Amino acid sequence: MTQPVPDHGIQDTGFQLQDGLDEAIAAFCLPEVLGFGSVFGPAMFRADYRDGQWLPGEFQRYGPIALEPGAKVLHYAQEVFEGLKAYRVDGREAALFRPEMNWRRLNSSAARLCLPAVPESVYVDGVFGVTALNEAFIPGASGESLYLRPFLFGTESNLGMGVAREVSFMVIASPSQAYHPGSMSLLIERGESRVAGGGIGAAKVGGNYACALQSAARCAELGYDLTLWLDPVKRRDIEELSGMNFFAVVDGRLLTPTLTGSILAGITRDSVIQLARSRGLEVEETSIAVDELLEWIAQGRCSECFACGTAAIIAPIRELGEADGRRCQLPPEGGAITASLRQALLDIQEGRAEDTFGWMAAIPDRYRRSSMSL
Amino acid sequence: MTQPVPDHGIQDTGFQLQDGLDEAIAAFCLPEVLGFGSVFGPAMFRADYRDGQWLPGEFQRYGPIALEPGAKVLHYAQEVFEGLKAYRVDGREAALFRPEMNWRRLNSSAARLCLPAVPESVYVDGVFGVTALNEAFIPGASGESLYLRPFLFGTESNLGMGVAREVSFMVIASPSQAYHPGSMSLLIERGESRVAGGGIGAAKVGGNYACALQSAARCAELGYDLTLWLDPVKRRDIEELSGMNFFAVVDGRLLTPTLTGSILAGITRDSVIQLARSRGLEVEETSIAVDELLEWIAQGRCSECFACGTAAIIAPIRELGEADGRRCQLPPEGGAITASLRQALLDIQEGRAEDTFGWMAAIPDRYRRSSMSL
Repeated sequence: MTQPVPDHGIQDTGFQLQDGLDEAIAAFCLPEVLGFGSVFGPAMFRADYRDGQWLPGEFQRYGPIALEPGAKVLHYAQEVFEGLKAYRVDGREAALFRPEMNWRRLNSSAARLCLPAVPESVYVDGVFGVTALNEAFIPGASGESLYLRPFLFGTESNLGMGVAREVSFMVIASPSQAYHPGSMSLLIERGESRVAGGGIGAAKVGGNYACALQSAARCAELGYDLTLWLDPVKRRDIEELSGMNFFAVVDGRLLTPTLTGSILAGITRDSVIQLARSRGLEVEETSIAVDELLEWIAQGRCSECFACGTAAIIAPIRELGEADGRRCQLPPEGGAITASLRQALLDIQEGRAEDTFGWMAAIPDRYRRSSMSL
Repeated sequence: MTQPVPDHGIQDTGFQLQDGLDEAIAAFCLPEVLGFGSVFGPAMFRADYRDGQWLPGEFQRYGPIALEPGAKVLHYAQEVFEGLKAYRVDGREAALFRPEMNWRRLNSSAARLCLPAVPESVYVDGVFGVTALNEAFIPGASGESLYLRPFLFGTESNLGMGVAREVSFMVIASPSQAYHPGSMSLLIERGESRVAGGGIGAAKVGGNYACALQSAARCAELGYDLTLWLDPVKRRDIEELSGMNFFAVVDGRLLTPTLTGSILAGITRDSVIQLARSRGLEVEETSIAVDELLEWIAQGRCSECFACGTAAIIAPIRELGEADGRRCQLPPEGGAITASLRQALLDIQEGRAEDTFGWMAAIPDRYRRSSMSL
């Protein structure tokens, strides 16, 4: 059911295994309560970039890294990241969901921040090797997964405002429960903006998340779960949530905001579009004015809204509200289309349905511990 | 000539000295070529925030810090920073320029990113203690200084998108040469934006600098020194450079963009305004449409432009240009008002002129090594 990772003919850069890694893996115990992104598996990957080239990567024991206090990542946020999941539900073979998409986006984000591209072989070593080494700790209930976090950051110690010439790429792995099981209530953010037009909204970079924290705090105060961001220029069109893309079912069609350059091109978003179309649903990428959407909800023309992302997969939206307390209600537990798309996607990810799109990637044998040289 | 730091009656949180610090200071040699922000003095300061409170700070040997790979600063850019200088020109007593302003701005930036405020006593320990311990390494030629970098970042290891509950505040110090001695050529950036309206442009946070790198690379390609950013909504009004504020002399008056919320409130900017007014110059904070300014330059109504910031102090702008190569010329070495403001400010900072504004802060005796307990 799963496919091997495509062999793109790129030469293997080689990798090393840190002393004591096997012992660390043998000694690791999965805690009973996992949460999301707070427990880390015992094996991680690191490759360093120096003098214009990538050095061989190393699989290491998970633990603190040493960073110069003047490292650019600590001052100028020269950091990009990805998030993807390895699934191993009901004892099936571990498989990653569309890992090549994350590699492409990682390098597109890296280019936006003038960081060097991560070669495919280094990325593949990282995500598959870390999955293989942590395989025993992938939780197996539906919704659970090994959340993989590849990230790239400037380590050069220099307070001048230039591009980092020393960079590290790491992959860490977090055995995780489902991220957001319930339906969500969103605050329509009419004051702040997440990113600028002509900014870095389409890149997956740390700075885009830091600026969303204040609005998130406001959501918590006002009794909302998450922020719904509007476009930064006209403050009219829906863009995305902090970390998820937005969908609405209007007149039986599935609408989602066009990728304007200030919206992250979500991999789950792309998967939902493909999946919906394959099931005969009409999907349109278009501008969605938030006030128009509120009218459509009031008129009953918009029957469902949901958000999607790697962490949450698909999460129904039960209401959209304003800072003054006015709220516009949707079905409390989400609608039928939301539920059926979520189930269809999870069935592919968790191996219960045929992978007709070729989205799942099995771990190549060479990353099995038995195939790795000591 | 210098004033002691104001005593605001805040109780001392206490601090510690790391073993081996004296030896590290004794062993340190200042290299002959300093550059800017690339050499670090042997003493640094660190205070950690945990369980809702600040722990006593420690003066440490400058060197790598240990950070969890899941630390929020590495993923979500939960980081704010400041820059200020200690001067000790021609053998005068070391003094800091307006350090209380940096403390206020640090905490305003921290609030924007939902990071805890740094208590005044912790900040004062950090900046004055680090200056005192590195005092022997403050270079003494005009334009040179000890560049201090206070920074605050989220260390909590958790990939969830929330506020860091574990945070560190550090101060590192870089003996530095003058940052940008020459006059600058600026690219008017009409495509990209630095920050969003309703974003974090007024805060001194890493993310604002990361997104400026691509435009900086474009400047280098096109033969410009730095980017001149326009407002992100109308793309019409001048905002700032990447890291400096903008001033123009028009019809004999000094104009600078109003602080709209997407411009950093520069401390040098504020000092230039006060200094210019004290010298009888009319200063107006206003919107400056870039195309109008270009006309004023062509008509001879705008005679000088300059940029200012802690690192560069005041740097003349010799031309403003477009991506297509059209360039609008100003006096190649800057004008008389630019030069005289720069000299007046440097004279105060470097102790040659009377500090009539009360801007310079001497190091309190308790931060002299001889007063610090072992």
